[in-house]
Amino acid sequence: MSAVASASDMPRGFTFAATHCGLKKTKLDLALIVSETPATAAAMFTTNRVKAAPLIVSQSHLRKSRTKMRAIIVNSGNANCVTGPDGYAASAATAKKLARELGPMDASQILVNSTGVIGVPLRVEKILDALPELVRFRRADAAAFEEVTRAIMTTDTRPKWAAAKCRIGGKVVKILGCAKGSGMISPNMATMLAFLSTDAAIGTALLSHALRVATRKTFNCITVDGATSTNDMVAVLANGQSGARKITGQGSDYKNFSAALESVCKSLALQIVTDGEGAQHVIEIEVRGAPSDRAAASVARTIANSSLVKTALAGADPNWGRILAAAGRSGVKFNFERADIWLAGILMCRRGLEQSFDERVAHGKMLAKNVPIVVDLRSGRGKARMWTCDFTAEYVRINASYRT
Amino acid sequence: MSAVASASDMPRGFTFAATHCGLKKTKLDLALIVSETPATAAAMFTTNRVKAAPLIVSQSHLRKSRTKMRAIIVNSGNANCVTGPDGYAASAATAKKLARELGPMDASQILVNSTGVIGVPLRVEKILDALPELVRFRRADAAAFEEVTRAIMTTDTRPKWAAAKCRIGGKVVKILGCAKGSGMISPNMATMLAFLSTDAAIGTALLSHALRVATRKTFNCITVDGATSTNDMVAVLANGQSGARKITGQGSDYKNFSAALESVCKSLALQIVTDGEGAQHVIEIEVRGAPSDRAAASVARTIANSSLVKTALAGADPNWGRILAAAGRSGVKFNFERADIWLAGILMCRRGLEQSFDERVAHGKMLAKNVPIVVDLRSGRGKARMWTCDFTAEYVRINASYRT
Repeated sequence: MSAVASASDMPRGFTFAATHCGLKKTKLDLALIVSETPATAAAMFTTNRVKAAPLIVSQSHLRKSRTKMRAIIVNSGNANCVTGPDGYAASAATAKKLARELGPMDASQILVNSTGVIGVPLRVEKILDALPELVRFRRADAAAFEEVTRAIMTTDTRPKWAAAKCRIGGKVVKILGCAKGSGMISPNMATMLAFLSTDAAIGTALLSHALRVATRKTFNCITVDGATSTNDMVAVLANGQSGARKITGQGSDYKNFSAALESVCKSLALQIVTDGEGAQHVIEIEVRGAPSDRAAASVARTIANSSLVKTALAGADPNWGRILAAAGRSGVKFNFERADIWLAGILMCRRGLEQSFDERVAHGKMLAKNVPIVVDLRSGRGKARMWTCDFTAEYVRINASYRT
Repeated sequence: MSAVASASDMPRGFTFAATHCGLKKTKLDLALIVSETPATAAAMFTTNRVKAAPLIVSQSHLRKSRTKMRAIIVNSGNANCVTGPDGYAASAATAKKLARELGPMDASQILVNSTGVIGVPLRVEKILDALPELVRFRRADAAAFEEVTRAIMTTDTRPKWAAAKCRIGGKVVKILGCAKGSGMISPNMATMLAFLSTDAAIGTALLSHALRVATRKTFNCITVDGATSTNDMVAVLANGQSGARKITGQGSDYKNFSAALESVCKSLALQIVTDGEGAQHVIEIEVRGAPSDRAAASVARTIANSSLVKTALAGADPNWGRILAAAGRSGVKFNFERADIWLAGILMCRRGLEQSFDERVAHGKMLAKNVPIVVDLRSGRGKARMWTCDFTAEYVRINASYRT
């Protein structure tokens, strides 16, 4: 993926705009994605019991208008979460005014989300005041999309986007996605903010299925700090403007499309982990030989969320014992005296016994940007993969004063 | 608790010794606690699937000699965990040689434990060579006990001990305990290393019951980093040398004794959290109004292990939204729009809505050593209490290079 999107990445019939409405001090804080024609929509939402107001509003809009969605409006700087009745009213008012500005349409044709600090009332008037200009200045070019990717950032240090193409009946279909996320990242049956637009023609059931499968294999396999957010949402709009034939049934068209969708989701998920708060390394954790896939996932997640494993990785310290200790407290039954562990490509533990390895070589390999961990429990055929980042003093610095 | 134990804290019939045997570079690394007469013993062990060799050996010794235990031997500097058959042989050899040195007794009358790095072979010959002198120089005084409290330390910055007395039938019964623990602390149905000696006379069933209840209410309610260790163990020896009548049945004698035991356990548990790696604050988390006590405990534990909550506490940032977000992902069902949250004694969220509070006053209160969090879900009668510490850059520094 190059640094910026190009004209050839842009799916047909979508426009983008971003602005500074005043929720943040100076940075872009309001983003708009518009499908110029009604689009089929699918979305997934956080499993956190504490759900932000815009998610509740968006869920109800999705139920009503899932075949004719028109836009996604997102602010950063405030999560509009735990904000009471005023919070719901703010999200509803945003959708209502945007529906009026975009042309005569129902407010339910708008998805709304917010990201930022929890519990602080949203100054929605700043958003409402900014909407007319935002709508007026929306554009279909890559530069406008790039501004959207920046307007949804919070502690992110860089914008995250990905694009993919596939062929459906000889026509090119494009998928373009952006995401934000750096802390409070442990999507599980949900994800951080990610918005995808595609000019494919596809029905709601198939689009939902493709998004659910892609999310399970990508966004739900990353963690920065084990904290499932209150505002997690991934949404896709498919407006059919590519001119390609409609995808019906789970044949080769669907396979091409869903593979492209998954590649965009995976790229965005890995960009989130790479930009994890304070992260220096990206850690891929592969667990195999578990009693089941579910057990493997539990082991992988426990390792991925272990502060002890993650701080050792920050110091490039080949402390493989902490990996096994984390596996041991995952709740999964296994005999640790059968376990093999590779860290940074080096077999450090074989059948529960340390293998002699060169400390200096191991330390050197662990200084790489990407550090793989492979755990083979040799207790079955279950396998799973998770991505996480290391845990640095910088994470603490970022989060010790996020609010004040 | 004063800085050092005094003669009046020492239970009768126990001796102590510590030495530097060479597992650490210069510090004390081998500790011995001896009951001069056979003692009733009870112990609890880690629930981690990866159990260190000395725990397996001690469990088997406990089954065999639970009414005539004579000593506890503990080394620091090496956990003797994931060390294969040699690890078991090392712990068994330690018990065997100590049994010979202490006088003619069975090896099963000895409990063994180790603490330190995982996965590195234990150089047991250093321990074996040190045993004769260790046994010879054991003493019943407070100074010897103080050396034991230091010899079991790893990343601990200070020794941890507690004492209590109770009256049984007009006689004074004493309980003296020591513990170590600073990182890899999330005892659950187990605990970190803690060793208690008492001159009470009590049967194994009652002693086990008292220890189990005390552990559940104290050690199992603390967490530093959510990582249940491979070497957790709490053990108590009761030798009856106080001269007090034997505690039989759950009457007032038992109540007096178990209250004293619990007070020692609670003091040790809080000392562990206070000395949590890098910790500046002790956080008491009280959850009430949950659907059940178990649900309350899940919520309290999720908050206590949240890196986002703990880093905010490190920065004295009144980010109460993160507390509610952690509760929301605990798996417990509740309506967050009924929840109340007090942070540092200030009501910050009432029925799911931020209450106006003075940021500067809140920040000031959060600079205190002890910071209480109270969460009332108003969804039932379940309640729970957990203790944890804040999460600082110092934790990362300690753990990024623990091994190398």
